[in-house]
Amino acid sequence: MNFCFSDRMSEMKGSAIREIFKLAGDPAVISLAGGNPAPELFPNKELAAIAAKLLEEKPVLSLQYGVTEGYAPLREQAKARIREKEGIDGENDELIITSGGQQGIELIAKCLVNEGDAVIVEEPSFIGATNAFRSFGAKLIGVGLENDGIDLDKLEKALDENKNVRIMYLIPTFQNPAGTTTSLEKRKAIYALAKKHSVLIIEDNPYGELRFAGEHVPTIKSMDTDGIVAYCGSFSKIISPGLRVGFLCAPKELVAKAVVAKQVSDVHTAMLPQLLVSEFMKRYDIDSFIKKNRELYGKKCALMLEGIEACFPGQVTHTTPQGGLFVWCDMNGDFDTAEIAKAAVKKNVVFVPGSTFMADMSKPRSTFRLNYSSMSDEKITKGVEILGKVLKEYV
Amino acid sequence: MNFCFSDRMSEMKGSAIREIFKLAGDPAVISLAGGNPAPELFPNKELAAIAAKLLEEKPVLSLQYGVTEGYAPLREQAKARIREKEGIDGENDELIITSGGQQGIELIAKCLVNEGDAVIVEEPSFIGATNAFRSFGAKLIGVGLENDGIDLDKLEKALDENKNVRIMYLIPTFQNPAGTTTSLEKRKAIYALAKKHSVLIIEDNPYGELRFAGEHVPTIKSMDTDGIVAYCGSFSKIISPGLRVGFLCAPKELVAKAVVAKQVSDVHTAMLPQLLVSEFMKRYDIDSFIKKNRELYGKKCALMLEGIEACFPGQVTHTTPQGGLFVWCDMNGDFDTAEIAKAAVKKNVVFVPGSTFMADMSKPRSTFRLNYSSMSDEKITKGVEILGKVLKEYV
Repeated sequence: MNFCFSDRMSEMKGSAIREIFKLAGDPAVISLAGGNPAPELFPNKELAAIAAKLLEEKPVLSLQYGVTEGYAPLREQAKARIREKEGIDGENDELIITSGGQQGIELIAKCLVNEGDAVIVEEPSFIGATNAFRSFGAKLIGVGLENDGIDLDKLEKALDENKNVRIMYLIPTFQNPAGTTTSLEKRKAIYALAKKHSVLIIEDNPYGELRFAGEHVPTIKSMDTDGIVAYCGSFSKIISPGLRVGFLCAPKELVAKAVVAKQVSDVHTAMLPQLLVSEFMKRYDIDSFIKKNRELYGKKCALMLEGIEACFPGQVTHTTPQGGLFVWCDMNGDFDTAEIAKAAVKKNVVFVPGSTFMADMSKPRSTFRLNYSSMSDEKITKGVEILGKVLKEYV
Repeated sequence: MNFCFSDRMSEMKGSAIREIFKLAGDPAVISLAGGNPAPELFPNKELAAIAAKLLEEKPVLSLQYGVTEGYAPLREQAKARIREKEGIDGENDELIITSGGQQGIELIAKCLVNEGDAVIVEEPSFIGATNAFRSFGAKLIGVGLENDGIDLDKLEKALDENKNVRIMYLIPTFQNPAGTTTSLEKRKAIYALAKKHSVLIIEDNPYGELRFAGEHVPTIKSMDTDGIVAYCGSFSKIISPGLRVGFLCAPKELVAKAVVAKQVSDVHTAMLPQLLVSEFMKRYDIDSFIKKNRELYGKKCALMLEGIEACFPGQVTHTTPQGGLFVWCDMNGDFDTAEIAKAAVKKNVVFVPGSTFMADMSKPRSTFRLNYSSMSDEKITKGVEILGKVLKEYV
């Protein structure tokens, strides 16, 4: 049988970085490619005790069907946390548990985007989100990202020129892949533009709790007096990504529709992971736990930047993250980092070429993303050193 | 902000039975509405020991990101099981782990159905599937279900008259909601028709292992020499639904596309639930465990049928399941069981009205679904007795 795929999916391919990630499983390979949190910080012993107790004492809660909206106490804990940490407390909002932050993005896309509608994304942006929009036939409009956030003039132009923009997708804090943080001033201006054009903002904030330098910047959602921001959060980067527990906080009407979409997608997020997250937050001081993450990532980031300064060709520029998991580099010239990535793989170092994160993925790019959270200090130093040599062959 | 929802989702509403299910959480209510497996059979102590050990000893495997296709050993175990139990062994097929059987259906719909395309469903059919198809803008064509499977003449007519049928969705074994099983003869005829018209069959088989009477009937997938059947399986009804672990076995080309769709939906199915299912099957004799399920459900089904014979008005007919979780009843006349359900709720008994399972959900129906797997024997007897009295008020 020759499968004739739907229009929305016919052009969709497995992302190139997934193939790179597969290589990353090889212990001989130094992976600066992934977005994995540091495994040494997983609270596995605490979760082991919680899991055993839950399954022993609450078999029905742990193993029977749950409700699509998510485990009620966890929803309350997530609400309380974003109220306390991010000032998010809209009375017209609702919060549901999603199967990772990723699912929140996909559900909103499914509920809002008709095929041919436009979605504005920062350029570069997170491939999981851009592909989610593509998978519903969205036309992506990339708007350049500056060190303090999206280019406002270009954003305004994109909104003026495209009348069918349904969503503006942003990662204002410790952006993936750029590692940059949008300034408060720009957040306010973005919000005003979204309001003027009646475009929903998806504020994706999986890394927000991972600040290791600089000052907290309020979320766009905390300014949302008009009900135009959908906020995607996640426990992946602060407890465990393998549990696939995230949340979506958005205007009630939108969340109600997202619940219907989630019902046909996976019925509900697995109960045991939800209960583990909930109990962990109840029993342990998650803030002191996250503090360890921040310290570790701050050190690893500094180590990577040090290596970049020492080993990369002088013309390569990089961002200086204040949190999160990624550094973004630019070779500043007519380079194709997808080709360079292939050369680096031969030296057992993997990273993600910049084209991956663009609205138009077909053009060669001089940029690339490095991750500092998942490798040992030794491997970071070694990996950057090897990569420096590879880059010098091209410059 | 007034949300303008996508065309595919604009008509989608939370299913009426979800509201009924919410009532079912009240301990005073006897729920014959759900599709929950019997909680007393959950292997919670075994899973508690496994979970503690996994999290203690394999923190990275349990808590780090996994691959979209699923945990490799579990994929092999699932392949081995459907090879052994269902004769499914296509060399051009692939199997991936999904977040419950539901996700397999949704992924295929996303990959194959353009808005306006037609999907043939048995009538009645599973609301989770029909809503998944609706959520991609499919036009549903309901084809009546007989005691031995779909009406072949009507199926042929539907295929002849509709040139844009992309999928034929069937639950041949212990159908939900009807409780019927499609005969071998009809399975062969359905396969031949699908082949002739180049239409993919989704064979949904979450209940296949729950036979308590009669003889095994080969799956349609076991006949699939042409690569035209996608088989959705699940561990929900044999281990635990709350873990949300299912699988999709289908031609490689289709599975590759489904992996891309899954990547943007939830990245991967939560690792701990996958590991729990895998380790449980490795360490314990799952067949003897499933045997207990079968025995229990056989007894509960017999009890329910006994009650129906004793308490329901004589004109109410019912199916006689050989496995699975459901009995389908027909009041045979001009009744609206959605109205009767409201009257029953007042007597603290809930069931699902037949309209829920139809392509056209707006018409009143004389049919309804009863579940016998999740309530105690006492509640089944009591529930059917009360329901009999309610029905008699209408007949």
